[in-house]
Formats: sequence, C-alpha cells, structure tokens
Amino acid sequence: MQTITELDPQLKVFEELESEVRGYIRSFPTTFVKAKDSMMWDVNDKAYIDFFAGAGALNYGHNNSKMKETLIRYLSEDGITHSLDMGTKAKATFLTKFNETILKPRGLEYKVMFPGPTGTNTVESALKLARKVTGRELVISFTNGFHGMTLGSLSITGNSFKRHGAGVSLNHSVAMPFDKYLGKDVDTVDYLERFLEDSGSGVALPAAIILETVQGEGGLNVANNVWLKRIEEVCRRWDILLIIDDVQAGCGRTGTFFSFETAGIKPDIVCLSKSISGYGTPMALTLIKPEYDLWAPGEHNGTFRGHNLAFITATEALTFWETEKFSEDIVAKGLLVDDFLTGLVSKYPELKGEVRGKGLFRGIACGVKGLADKICAEAFERGLIMETSGPNSEVFKIMPALTIDCKTLNQGFAIIEESVKASLTN
Amino acid sequence: MQTITELDPQLKVFEELESEVRGYIRSFPTTFVKAKDSMMWDVNDKAYIDFFAGAGALNYGHNNSKMKETLIRYLSEDGITHSLDMGTKAKATFLTKFNETILKPRGLEYKVMFPGPTGTNTVESALKLARKVTGRELVISFTNGFHGMTLGSLSITGNSFKRHGAGVSLNHSVAMPFDKYLGKDVDTVDYLERFLEDSGSGVALPAAIILETVQGEGGLNVANNVWLKRIEEVCRRWDILLIIDDVQAGCGRTGTFFSFETAGIKPDIVCLSKSISGYGTPMALTLIKPEYDLWAPGEHNGTFRGHNLAFITATEALTFWETEKFSEDIVAKGLLVDDFLTGLVSKYPELKGEVRGKGLFRGIACGVKGLADKICAEAFERGLIMETSGPNSEVFKIMPALTIDCKTLNQGFAIIEESVKASLTN
Amino acid sequence: MQTITELDPQLKVFEELESEVRGYIRSFPTTFVKAKDSMMWDVNDKAYIDFFAGAGALNYGHNNSKMKETLIRYLSEDGITHSLDMGTKAKATFLTKFNETILKPRGLEYKVMFPGPTGTNTVESALKLARKVTGRELVISFTNGFHGMTLGSLSITGNSFKRHGAGVSLNHSVAMPFDKYLGKDVDTVDYLERFLEDSGSGVALPAAIILETVQGEGGLNVANNVWLKRIEEVCRRWDILLIIDDVQAGCGRTGTFFSFETAGIKPDIVCLSKSISGYGTPMALTLIKPEYDLWAPGEHNGTFRGHNLAFITATEALTFWETEKFSEDIVAKGLLVDDFLTGLVSKYPELKGEVRGKGLFRGIACGVKGLADKICAEAFERGLIMETSGPNSEVFKIMPALTIDCKTLNQGFAIIEESVKASLTN
Amino acid sequence: MQTITELDPQLKVFEELESEVRGYIRSFPTTFVKAKDSMMWDVNDKAYIDFFAGAGALNYGHNNSKMKETLIRYLSEDGITHSLDMGTKAKATFLTKFNETILKPRGLEYKVMFPGPTGTNTVESALKLARKVTGRELVISFTNGFHGMTLGSLSITGNSFKRHGAGVSLNHSVAMPFDKYLGKDVDTVDYLERFLEDSGSGVALPAAIILETVQGEGGLNVANNVWLKRIEEVCRRWDILLIIDDVQAGCGRTGTFFSFETAGIKPDIVCLSKSISGYGTPMALTLIKPEYDLWAPGEHNGTFRGHNLAFITATEALTFWETEKFSEDIVAKGLLVDDFLTGLVSKYPELKGEVRGKGLFRGIACGVKGLADKICAEAFERGLIMETSGPNSEVFKIMPALTIDCKTLNQGFAIIEESVKASLTN
Repeated sequence: MQTITELDPQLKVFEELESEVRGYIRSFPTTFVKAKDSMMWDVNDKAYIDFFAGAGALNYGHNNSKMKETLIRYLSEDGITHSLDMGTKAKATFLTKFNETILKPRGLEYKVMFPGPTGTNTVESALKLARKVTGRELVISFTNGFHGMTLGSLSITGNSFKRHGAGVSLNHSVAMPFDKYLGKDVDTVDYLERFLEDSGSGVALPAAIILETVQGEGGLNVANNVWLKRIEEVCRRWDILLIIDDVQAGCGRTGTFFSFETAGIKPDIVCLSKSISGYGTPMALTLIKPEYDLWAPGEHNGTFRGHNLAFITATEALTFWETEKFSEDIVAKGLLVDDFLTGLVSKYPELKGEVRGKGLFRGIACGVKGLADKICAEAFERGLIMETSGPNSEVFKIMPALTIDCKTLNQGFAIIEESVKASLTN
Repeated sequence: MQTITELDPQLKVFEELESEVRGYIRSFPTTFVKAKDSMMWDVNDKAYIDFFAGAGALNYGHNNSKMKETLIRYLSEDGITHSLDMGTKAKATFLTKFNETILKPRGLEYKVMFPGPTGTNTVESALKLARKVTGRELVISFTNGFHGMTLGSLSITGNSFKRHGAGVSLNHSVAMPFDKYLGKDVDTVDYLERFLEDSGSGVALPAAIILETVQGEGGLNVANNVWLKRIEEVCRRWDILLIIDDVQAGCGRTGTFFSFETAGIKPDIVCLSKSISGYGTPMALTLIKPEYDLWAPGEHNGTFRGHNLAFITATEALTFWETEKFSEDIVAKGLLVDDFLTGLVSKYPELKGEVRGKGLFRGIACGVKGLADKICAEAFERGLIMETSGPNSEVFKIMPALTIDCKTLNQGFAIIEESVKASLTN
Repeated sequence: MQTITELDPQLKVFEELESEVRGYIRSFPTTFVKAKDSMMWDVNDKAYIDFFAGAGALNYGHNNSKMKETLIRYLSEDGITHSLDMGTKAKATFLTKFNETILKPRGLEYKVMFPGPTGTNTVESALKLARKVTGRELVISFTNGFHGMTLGSLSITGNSFKRHGAGVSLNHSVAMPFDKYLGKDVDTVDYLERFLEDSGSGVALPAAIILETVQGEGGLNVANNVWLKRIEEVCRRWDILLIIDDVQAGCGRTGTFFSFETAGIKPDIVCLSKSISGYGTPMALTLIKPEYDLWAPGEHNGTFRGHNLAFITATEALTFWETEKFSEDIVAKGLLVDDFLTGLVSKYPELKGEVRGKGLFRGIACGVKGLADKICAEAFERGLIMETSGPNSEVFKIMPALTIDCKTLNQGFAIIEESVKASLTN
Repeated sequence: MQTITELDPQLKVFEELESEVRGYIRSFPTTFVKAKDSMMWDVNDKAYIDFFAGAGALNYGHNNSKMKETLIRYLSEDGITHSLDMGTKAKATFLTKFNETILKPRGLEYKVMFPGPTGTNTVESALKLARKVTGRELVISFTNGFHGMTLGSLSITGNSFKRHGAGVSLNHSVAMPFDKYLGKDVDTVDYLERFLEDSGSGVALPAAIILETVQGEGGLNVANNVWLKRIEEVCRRWDILLIIDDVQAGCGRTGTFFSFETAGIKPDIVCLSKSISGYGTPMALTLIKPEYDLWAPGEHNGTFRGHNLAFITATEALTFWETEKFSEDIVAKGLLVDDFLTGLVSKYPELKGEVRGKGLFRGIACGVKGLADKICAEAFERGLIMETSGPNSEVFKIMPALTIDCKTLNQGFAIIEESVKASLTN
C-alpha cells in the first residue's frame, strides 16, 4: 500500500511538520488550494464537490461572492479588524441586523454575547452562565451529544475517545438518553423525569439541560418536536435553563435559521458558531434571555471575541434570511436528498441502511462495520468530499452548502451511488 | 454624571442588544471604525494612539499594508478560507516558513499543532497532551498566571473573579509562587522543590508546569532568566513537562520571537496565539517536542483550526523575523519606554510607582488604589488607548505595536504624562 | 404542643449539650437504659418492643446472653482490646471460624480485610480497591442506594439531602436505575447495557458496579435474582468488579447469611458491617476475591480496625450459622411478617399500602404523604420502636431481631395495627 | 531468611485468610493475647513493653482496671449497647461529665456531635459542617498532615502513598507549609497570608483551615504556640473556620487534655477520637462552637455513633482529668523522655538524630535512611513495641501510655538504647 506522501508529495510537509493530531487530511489526502461555492480544487487542479461544508461552517458555500466583495471593501478601507469587546461600527451593524432579521421576526428577545470565536467557547460561556443564574453545578446533557473539546464542553460530550483525551475526570454532568435512544417506543423524557422527581435518584437538580436538536457528530439523531417540547416543559417545571447548542444544526442547516423553530420552543440560551460568520471565518454567539443576562463585565472573555472581518460577512449572510425563500429552498433540497437516500437504501439492501437527519443535514447509517468509511474514501477518489459521524463512524453524512444548485447536488448523488456500488463489490 | 450613551448615542446599540458581559467598551466608550498601524479612529473621526495593541494580538499594528495586500489577493483568487485540518497550500506554506524562519534558526524542533484559533484552545490542548504523555493529572501553575477562560485553562488561572465565574470547582491544579512573589530575597523555586521532594507534602508529581515568562494579565511580573532556568531543571529532574504559555508574551512582545529565548530554556510545549496571525485574526499554535507528539488523530479538534486567511497573514508576518533588525528595534524602543516610565516614577512620587516589564511589554504599578484606572480614563479622553492589569488593576500597561514609530511613541508618552498629572491633581 | 423536654426532663441534657445533628432521638424522645434481646427499657422503666434492631446492627438482639458471657470473660482475663492490624488470638480465631462456618460451606473464597469498624469504611475501601485493580475511576451505583456518609461512599449514595450535605460536588459515579425503577415491565439492565455498549453514551467503563440486593434506606426495594444474575453477567462481560454492599442486608437479614446467596452470584468484593460483630459493637469487613487482593501494606488503614471485643462476639455470633436451622427460622418468621403486612394492606385500603422486602427486612410503602411517620410515632407511644425509610420516608420498616420469638412478634403486630388505626382516624 | 510463619506458625492464619493490606503485623510479627496497662503478651507468653499505645488510642494503657470494672458491670446489667443517636443514660452521663470536667473548666463552650466512631468520621463531619457554614468549598490543610483514609479526609492528608490509594483525584483542598516547613527562619503564616490576601493567587478563600498541633503521622512536627496563634488570627481576619484535628494529639498526649490549650486558641471545631473512649474501643466526637451548629437532623450519620460501651469507659476516663495532677505527670514524664532522647542523640552521633515532639508524644528523626525502622525491629526483638512515622519513616516514636510508671519507662529506655546500639553496629 502506498503511503499518503507517495500519492501526493506535497503532503510530506504535513507529515514532517504538523502534529499527529491532524485528522481530516488522512481521509482527504490532498492539498487544497481554491474553493468556490460548492466546489474545491487541489494542487493538481482536481475538482471536488463539497458535501461536507466545513463540518457545517460553510452553509453559504465557499467564498460567497457578495460576502467576499464586502469583505475586500472593508479590508481596503482599513476597517478595524480586531477589537476585543470594544464598540465598533461593524459590530453595531451586525447586532442591529441580527436583531431585525433573525430575532424580531421570530418573536425572540435575546441579549447577544460574543464569547470568543469558536463553538466550544459559546458552550463554555453558556455553562458558566447557567451555573451562575441557578447557583447549581450539574448540567444534564444527552447520549451522543457533542459540544466541544475544552474541558467544560468536553464534560458534556458523549464520545468516549474524546472524553478520555481530557486526561482528567469530567464532572458536574450527567448523560441522559436522547430521543429514541432506548428504541422508538420509549419516551426518554419519562426516564429523565423519573430521575428528577425522585429525591433519592442520585441525580441533583441541574443548572441546565443542553442539547442539539439534531446530533451532527453523534450520528444525525433527530429529536422529535414533541420530545423537544416535553424537554422544555421539564425545564420550566423545575426551573432548569434550557440551552440549545445550535452550533452545527443552526444557521439554516435543518431548514430554519434556528433548528428549534418548528418545535415551538424558546430556549433560555442558544449557542451559535460555525456558519454564523457566513464565510468560514471564526465567530460565535451566545444568545441569552434578557432576564438571565447576569454576567459581570468581563466575567467571561477572550482575545478574539471582536473579530470584525467575521462581523462584516456575518451581516451580509443575514440577507439570505430576509425572506422565506431561502428556508423553503433548503427544505426542498433536503427532500431531494431524502429521496435519493431512501432510494439508495432500498436499492442496496446490503447497506443495511437507515436514512437519518433533517433539512440538508442528512445521511445513511450503515449496518455494516467500516462501510461508511469505505464509501467516503471511494467518494473522495471520485471527487466528492463527505464525512462520517456516529460513535462508530457508521453514518455517512450529506451536508452540502445550503446554497448548492441542483445540478451539483445531482452530480454528488451520482458519485455517491458509484461509491456505494464500489464499496459493496470490493 | 452622563451615561455612556449620552456621550455617544451610537453606544445605545450595545447597551440594548449586547450582553452585560462586555468589558472594554466600558473603559473606551466609543464606536471604532477604522484603524491603521498604531492609530484608531472612531465614528466621530477622533483619532487614538493605540498603546494596547489588541491585548497583544496586534504586535504588527492594525491592518499592516503588506499583510492586507496579501490577504486581499488571496481572497480575490478564491483561495480556500476554511479547511478544518485538511491539507491546504496556505497551511503548507506557513508551516514551511515557520520552520525555516523561527524554529530552525533557534535550534528548536517542534511539531506544530493547530488546536483551534484562540489562546485558551492552545492551552487546553497543551494540558491534555501533558496529561496523556505523563499519565499524571496535576498541573502546577503560578500565582497571577492567566491562561484562558474555558474550564481547563481557567483551572490554572489565578484571578479569583475569573475562577469564581466557572460556577464549579476547578481541580487538578496547584498554584505555586511566581518569581519574586515572596519578595526579592526568596527564590520561590526552593519552595516548589520542597513540595516536590517531600512525599508528604500533599502535592503530587505533576504532569506539567505551565507559566508565562512575563505575566501580562497578572501585573507585568517578569520571571528572571535564572529562575526560568531553575524551573526547567526542576522539570528535567522530575520528568515534568515544561509548558510556556507564550500567547501574550510571545511573537516578539518581549524583544525576541519567543519570550523564553534569552533564558536559554527549551520548553516541551509552547502555546502561541494572539499575534501569530499578524493581523488580529484568530489563530493559535501548540508547539510540541516530537517525542511528545503522542496524539491520536482527532483526539483534540475544533472547527476553526484551519483558518487559512490567518495562515496567509501569519506567513507574511514571519518576514519581520528574517533578520535580527526587528528584534533589535523592539529592544531599543523598549528602552525608550523604560526611560520614560522611570522618569515618570521619579518625577511623580505620588504615583508610588514601580516600573515593570520587559521589551515593549511594560507599565507602572501604582501604589494608590484606583489610580491606574483613572490614568487610563484620562488618557482615553486625550486620545490614547491603554489598559490596566494586575489583581487589583493597579498596573497601567504600555503595550504599543512593535512596529510603532518613535514619533507616535513620544506623542503617546506626552499624553500619558498629562493624564498622570490630571489624575494626581483631581 | 409540648416540647420534647417537657415530656421527659432528662432529654434536656441532649438539647443543651448535643449537636443539632441528632436524629433518632427526635423520633423516639426518651432516654434508654437497658435492653435485652427484643426489648428495650427507658429511664421510666417503660418497655419497648424493638422492631428496628439498631438499623440492622442488632440482628441477634440486644445483649445476647452467650455473647455477653464470652465478652465478659474476655474482658476479665485482660484479653487484648485494641490492636490495630497486629495479630491477635481473637482475630485469628474469628478468621478461622468465619472461613469454616461462612465461606467454605458456600464455596466462597475471599481474603478478609478489616477496613475500620463502620459501614462507610468498608465501602470506601472497596471503592479504592476496585479503582486500583481496574485503573478506572467511575463507579456505577443505583438509584436510592445508600452506602455511607464519608465522601467516597456519599458519592454513590442516592439521597439528595445527604448528598447536599457534602458541601462539595460528588464525582466519579453514575447512578443507574435499580431493578423495577422504571416500572415492572422494564428490565433496567437493558438500559445499563445500552450505556455501556455505546462508546458515545457519555458513561465510561466503570471500575465497579456497587449495589445492595435490598435497599434498606432507599425504601426496601428488592432486586430480583434474575436481575442480579444479569448484573453479574454485565460485570463479567466488561471486566467490571461487582461489589455487593451487604452492610444492612447481610448477616442473615434476608434469610441467608449473605443476601445474594439465592441469586447464585459471586461478587468480587463484599462489604459487611452492622451485625457482623453480633453485639452492636463497631466492626466491619471487606471480603475480596484473592486475585483482586492487590493492596500494598497499609494502603488503607484506620485506628479501630483491630477491635478485639467485637471479634470475640462476632466469633460467638457465627455459631448461629453452624446449621441450616437459623436460616430456616428467619424465612419462616419473614413469612409471618409478610402475612401480617399483606393482611394490613387489604384491611386498611386507606393506607394505599404496598408490601415490600424480603426475609425479616420488610415493610409497607404508604401512598399517603406523612402517614408512615405518623404510624411510627403512634407505635412509639404504644411501646414499639420502628423507623421509616424511602426517599420521602414513605415506608415503615419491620426489622426485628432475627432471634425474636413469635410471641413478641405478634405483640408487635398488634401495636402496629393499633397505630395504623389511630393514624388513619386522626 | 525465615518467613514470618516460620518464626511463628500461628501467623499462617493471617497470611492465608487476611488481606495483603495488613500492616503492623509485618513490623510486629507475633500473635498477641493479653494486655494490661503498659504491657502486652503474645501466644508464647513473651512480654512486651508498649511504647506505641495503639497509635494514640490507648493513652490510659491497656484494659485499665477501673474502666474494665465499670464496663463489666454495665454489661452484666444489660445496659444498652447500641443506640445510634437515640438518647441513652450512658450518653447523657458522658455528655454531662465531659462538659463539667473538660469544657467548663477550660472556658470552652462546644456542642458535642457523635459522628461515627472513628477519626476519619469526625474529620469528614467537620469538613462538611465548615463547608455548610461558610458556603465555601476549599479547605486548607498542611504539609505532612494526616486526617484519615476516607475520601474527604484523604483529600487533606499529605502522604502521597495514601493519597494515591484513592484511585481518583482529591480535590477542594490546598496544602500550605506547616510551621518550620521552610526552615526555622521562615514564618510560614506569612506565606499563607500572601496567598489569601492576593485575589490573583489562585487560592480561594477557604471554608476552613485544619491542622494537628503536633503531626503524629507526619513526623512529630510540633507547631509553635505563636504560629498557632497567628493561624487563629488569620482565621478570624478572613472568617475562616479553624478546625483542630486532635485525634492523635488530644486526650492528654501533649500534656493537656486538648493539645491547643497552651497556645490559648479557641478552635471553631475540634475533632477527637482514639483515646476519647479510654479503653481502645471505637468512639469519636466532633466539638462545635454553638453558633456553627447548623446541622439539619441526620445530615451526617452512621450506625455506630451510639456505642454505649465506649461512653461508659469514656466517662470513667474523664476522672483522670478532675485535678491538675494527671496533666502535671504527663509533662514530667515527657521531660524524662526528652532527657533520654537528647542524651541518646548526643551519645550516638551516628544517628544524625533530631529530637522531636512534646509531652509524651516524642521521638527521634534519624538522618540515616532506614535506620528508624531498624531500631524499631531491634526493639521488637527485645520486647518493646514502638513505631516509626514521617514521610520516609525516618522518626521512631516514643508514645507510651500516659499512665506508664517510671520503672517501665526506664526499662523501655534501656531497650531502645540497646536497639540503637545494635542497629548502628550491624
């Protein structure tokens, strides 16, 4: 078998100089150079369709033309780039437009916190605040939840390999069964309530319940709206803060800006990152119900919480949400994906496939060990970027840019089907 | 007294929409628009000299022309922006240049990890790795150290207000006295060794000792080179990993690229962020001795660890380090600052001032409660941005861009002297 | 309403000098003087039937004549009283007889540890050892389990009031649902296995699973033998140590010496205390499968682990177990209790009663809030000592000495029925 | 070399049936049968002088005649043995006499808690209460402190071997340097205060400071009265509870009933166990200033907290304290020990000996590795029981019963001198 660098001598740089921790480069062994919308090109000018979208950070595709234009203009005019949490015009403009375009039309009132520009930062800030507001320590999370890699976020993340990496015990958290974790007939909220009601259960009243409505890393497990509504009721009954981690599922991925909109719930805290800047540049927000905005100034901080280049593209990205059209398109394209995947599962029973997900956040869980990884590798060979998820990497994940056109989508489908065939015959 | 928004009606946006956690906007109550090198301008076109440098993230000033040019070109050509830890040309170029310009000439051999683009991320990755390598849990940090706001980094940070914000107990860490913490005559390494040698001390053998050579947030406390050398010896004697958190003190702030160069030590892990991208855009590195690069693929990760816009400017920024000139200039300007501050202290004994710091990382600790804050507020009025540090905000901090010209430096000095006078007479 | 001391002026001593933490004296407000077998007498010479048996520490009744005789002889001869873990003849004799009478006939091979003379001490030692043997930290316990009040034991105890008393967070433990916790139709082992099998569940592989086969404090919840067998299988499958906390349920309380005998399981570690000394004097044992006896000398210790007066009576107590007779008697008397309780429940439907327990470890869970406490208070008035258990004190507990004669048992029943009647009519 | 069981075939029982955790039997390889005052006899009728006193649990010697008589009478009359925390006449009598004989004459007002009958139990209860009273989590302890082996007590114990045995991380505690830990010229209270005063020190305001005035296990380190007074002042200044763990140093060991009497301090909580029962039977007390007695009923409990046999002998033991005579005798005998040890050190410079301790709590720290253990082994051969302490077992400890007569004391001295000689010449 060839080594990666025999395939592409440029990769030698990474092998020699970069840490062993690097991951995706092992699945996609090439050196990328350019990208535009749903396409990527490597050093050999080979083109790839992107069904990965930066793990959800590129919902508007690569280097969106309008955002790029705005960004270049801002740079040219020496707009301020870095400002910590000082006031800047770029930030004021973003705040105003976010309020007008996203919050107000949805009847949501949130104070906006800039917690540092990564998903794990918004989660850590949400945990701190929930603990401060309630005076409690415990946070309830769910099986197969993924919330980040710093110690606080990791303590509420399910994956044992990631958890083990902490090197210390991860405390102040309890994992409860996610929707359908115990089969389709068991309502796991009953289970949660049993523990909360019983003063002898060993599970204390938590500061917060945190969840993703669709578990992206955990295997595209979708929480039912009724289940979400019941979780919200549990929170209200026991004065527990409800935190929705919308880092991956938010910003339109499931069809609506916030993933929880169709459930009709109003979380107390919402975590946003990944696609919020629109351009793949680092940015994160923590949205807080005004009555819970009990921070002291500077109680949580971070050097890059004022990344104005991201604010500029983020503001531009919000224009997608000015009408219903964008949302409707996502849903429509999501159904195309669903049709394709459903067809695939019935056509190739050897996949032992189960279609999962919502909106443009979909995939197939394969019942054969190692198969999803194989399909992704075959797809890469054929010019498609796609990743796996789930505790055993058993799900291959169709997660294109929300802006993808149907032609490219169909090209992608064709490559996937070929890859499935190739994987099953080898 | 006027409210902030009466002073500047634009600030209303932040008061209404942004979380109470916002901090610097309270010290610098205006809305910034543009910035170039060492100058910033607000919405009213008022100009400010920047002696703050983005808390160390803007060592090369705002919107450096050459970096800007490179960045705009990259954007125009649709260079890939976001890539997680896939291979990209921008990353390969950075890695190569970093190795050639920084590591090799200093005789350092490190594997480079991209841990997510913030200071706290590199620290969290360093802690994880040290624990993995040694199989131990404890990490020894120092009084008044600052390492970040996520749970792992916070556990080794000294500030009680920040620590309390965690809302949970912070464990697996012990704070030892920093250099000169117990007075000039006490070598605190003796103290540390006493605890390590004695199997009954209650302090276990740690995985790592982590420190900043100059404590930026902690009050500009400078570790002596001899002390640093002894700390390294302690680490070697007990097989403890030495982690230097060079997030604020690194990238030239103290006069050399790494703050520890003059001490002649070779840390096992180095944490870099803030000015590594050169342009104020989020980026961080964890440098690891090859023998300790024991990560499994993906054991630590993060969405924005492949922020190519930052790699592009970071590569450009490294050109500053191709000769000795840049370093010599920093040292020379640092001496100007030192002269000025020393003069100030002797001219205004009411300051009860003590000059602190190294390179362009300097300031005065004022023996009068609240005085440093007052001086900064007066300076802001007069068009100078400067912040305080130290457990009681007792130090005002002169931290201009390393690229500042002498004229601007002197203008800044003049404003500071006026501000000192005004503060002492009110 | 009268204060306690108006009822009995002697109680003033306790109110004035003893801490507010005192508990049982509030339920049984008198001063006891003498006790013999199943009877107790107070300062006013009022006699009480004892259906409490020192919370399980007096399985052989008060001041058993043969043990008393042996003890007085030992004292008279200046037998050594206190010996830490030095060798003594009293200990050698106990070890030999325990092996011959208890372990060998049951086909059990255990090394015997003397961990300090209380229940919480044996549990703490078991947790330490399981963690040492496996190199893992987590311990799985069960809802409504009770294991003791020191920090390690408390971390695996369910009761929220007790847990809260710790004043710090209780870590390294996860509470799983006990048998029938989710209703009679749900096998909670499925639930436990789901978490163990799934590497994304957030629950790590534990060092040990610890449980009581009958939860004495938790409300007399009895684990089914099939459930216990499945738990043992889970332990074997995942190399988890099985710890049975037989502190309250052991020493014959459920009908056999060990409570787990009828389930046919062989725990890796067994915790014994309470009635092991036979005389109500402090003593505890930790039984360890020889292959797991990996302690270093003195790795766990305690001043009173060599309490020879307890060894003397403990040895005498073992004579009860030389034939099957004693066990058969317990079972027979247990059925009498069961008959009585079942009758009570059907005769007094207002109790909303559910009979619980096994052997002479039985009681009624009352569906009416506060009723069980009331019945116990009425019983005390009428000369019967009986306590409640369960998360809301909803169970009154019939737990007489195993040696009680049928006449006294029936007198007790009569008092209980009167007390039930009085409680329901008030 | 002979195995232990070749020396004494009776020891086989322990090797076969008892856990490897057994410790003292390895230093004193024989089987003891009888004991009286300061003498012990083994199965071979060999007599031993006891300079160990049950590690401080036998301050009144073995099987004191008056206590024995009282105890046998109580047993004969069927006085109640086991009562949890119900009221009993034996307990009332003890409480009254303890108040009259100990507390009142010393001007101390404490509520008395019975926390379970071991040292670690009283310490765990003290920690819980201090945390409850202050709402803080951290407890400050000292280097080489020993407080017990359950998880809470272990977290404030210094010994790394014992700590490691926990198998989990030990949190919520910080070890500060004990008196003279950094040499005779450094007042370690300065160090402690520096950390408390500095809000950036990384050490939070603690709930309590806990210490032994003489560290028995830690190597007979004696805290100076001035140092103790300063510690008390620190506690008052910062509203920190002062807990004196007098489990080993209390009950007269240092010359006064409480070890802290000569320092003139009034701790907020005092932990007593070991010799409080007087007879080597398990008992412990937690003394609490009335204003801090904020327990809810049953918030801390334990089966054997009502061990009336111990109350009976404990009451008898208090008669020793009715006059000053007993205390004066201890001091006088302590000086004899001191004279002997001082002489030994100067006569045998090869010992590199340093005399340590106070009252009848004394010993010699040997500067030669392994020597103290050797001397103890030689002494055992010659019929004297004596143990080592200190982080490296470098101290041999003279800790006879307080009631020892001068003749026996001198016989012991003679054996020690012979043992020293033998150890030095081998």
